[in-house]
Amino acid sequence: MKRIAIDMDEVIADFVPKHLELFNEKHNEALTLDDLRGKKLAHLRPHLNDEIRRLYDNHGFFRSLNVIKDSQEVIKELSEHYEIYIATAAMEVPSSFAAKYEWLKEHFSFLNEMNFVFCGDKSIIHADYLIDDNVRNFKGFIGQGILFSSPHNLFETGYVRVNNWQEVREYFLGDQPKA
Amino acid sequence: MKRIAIDMDEVIADFVPKHLELFNEKHNEALTLDDLRGKKLAHLRPHLNDEIRRLYDNHGFFRSLNVIKDSQEVIKELSEHYEIYIATAAMEVPSSFAAKYEWLKEHFSFLNEMNFVFCGDKSIIHADYLIDDNVRNFKGFIGQGILFSSPHNLFETGYVRVNNWQEVREYFLGDQPKA
Repeated sequence: MKRIAIDMDEVIADFVPKHLELFNEKHNEALTLDDLRGKKLAHLRPHLNDEIRRLYDNHGFFRSLNVIKDSQEVIKELSEHYEIYIATAAMEVPSSFAAKYEWLKEHFSFLNEMNFVFCGDKSIIHADYLIDDNVRNFKGFIGQGILFSSPHNLFETGYVRVNNWQEVREYFLGDQPKA
Repeated sequence: MKRIAIDMDEVIADFVPKHLELFNEKHNEALTLDDLRGKKLAHLRPHLNDEIRRLYDNHGFFRSLNVIKDSQEVIKELSEHYEIYIATAAMEVPSSFAAKYEWLKEHFSFLNEMNFVFCGDKSIIHADYLIDDNVRNFKGFIGQGILFSSPHNLFETGYVRVNNWQEVREYFLGDQPKA
C-alpha cells in the first residue's frame, strides 16, 4: 500500500482565515485573503513580525482551527487505498504540540495516532507522496510533492498543484466510484 | 551526508532506572534492573499495568530523566560526520511532548530542533540508520537498525547491537581519531 503524508496548517487546518481575523481585530485593519496572494502576513507587515507570531503561538489558536472543506471525507476515502500519515512542522511552534494532537483526535478520529508525525525538516518523512502548502517542504523529500493551494503559494510554478480536496480525490482516486 | 535517527527513551534518556525507582517507592518493592532482564515492568506486574503507566504519563517524569552516559559527547562528534535526527515515539505518551522538547533543548542544545521528530510508527523515518532499544521499530524501517541494549532487549538476537555510546562511536567512527 502506498503512503501519503499530509500537512496540517493550510491543508487540513484552516490557519490563515483565523490568523487574519485575529490580526485585523487587534490592529484595526481590514486585510483580506486577496491581499495575501503570493505572500504571508509577515511579509505584508514586517514591522509586526513578533506580534504576528504571538497571535498563533499558543494552544488555543491551533485547537480552535476549522477543518478545511472536504478534507475529512476525502482522507477517509483515501485511507481505504493508501496508508495515511499526518506530518506537521510542529517543531516551529512547540506551543502547538498538545493542541495539534487533540485537534487531530477530534476531527480525524478515524486515523491512528501512531501515524501522526510532529517534525521540523520534512526530508525525514518516508512516504510516496507529501501534500503540503509550503514548497520548501518538498526539498529533500524522496517522494512526489503535491502543492495544496494557499494564498501565499499561488504564484509558485513547477509543482503538481491541487486547489482543494476534490482535486486531491481526483488525483489519487480519479477512476474510483465515489464511496 | 548519511543520516542517523536516534531514539530517546533508553537510548539517550535514562527511562528505566527512574521508572523502577518510582515503582519501588510507590509499591514498597525492591525490584532491580536484573529483574528486568528480557522483560518490561508491565510484564513482571501485569495486574499493575495502569499504575505503571501513570508513573511516567506526565510532564515531570520525562523532563527529569538523566542523560545516558556518553550520549552527548558521542552524538556531538557524530554530528560532524552525519546528519543527526532524534526520533521518538512520543505519540504513545502525548503528555510527554513538551517535556521531551524542553529536555532535548536543554541536554542536546547543539542539535537543531528542526531535526526532532515526535512520531508513532517509525517506518515513517527516512534515514540511513536508526539507533533504538525496541526491535519493533526496525520493522518497516528502510535503513539499518542498530539495537541499543536495554534490560528488556538483552535476549533479542539477529540485530546489530551496541551496548553503550562508546560502542556507537566505534560503529560509526571506529577509524577516526577521538575529537
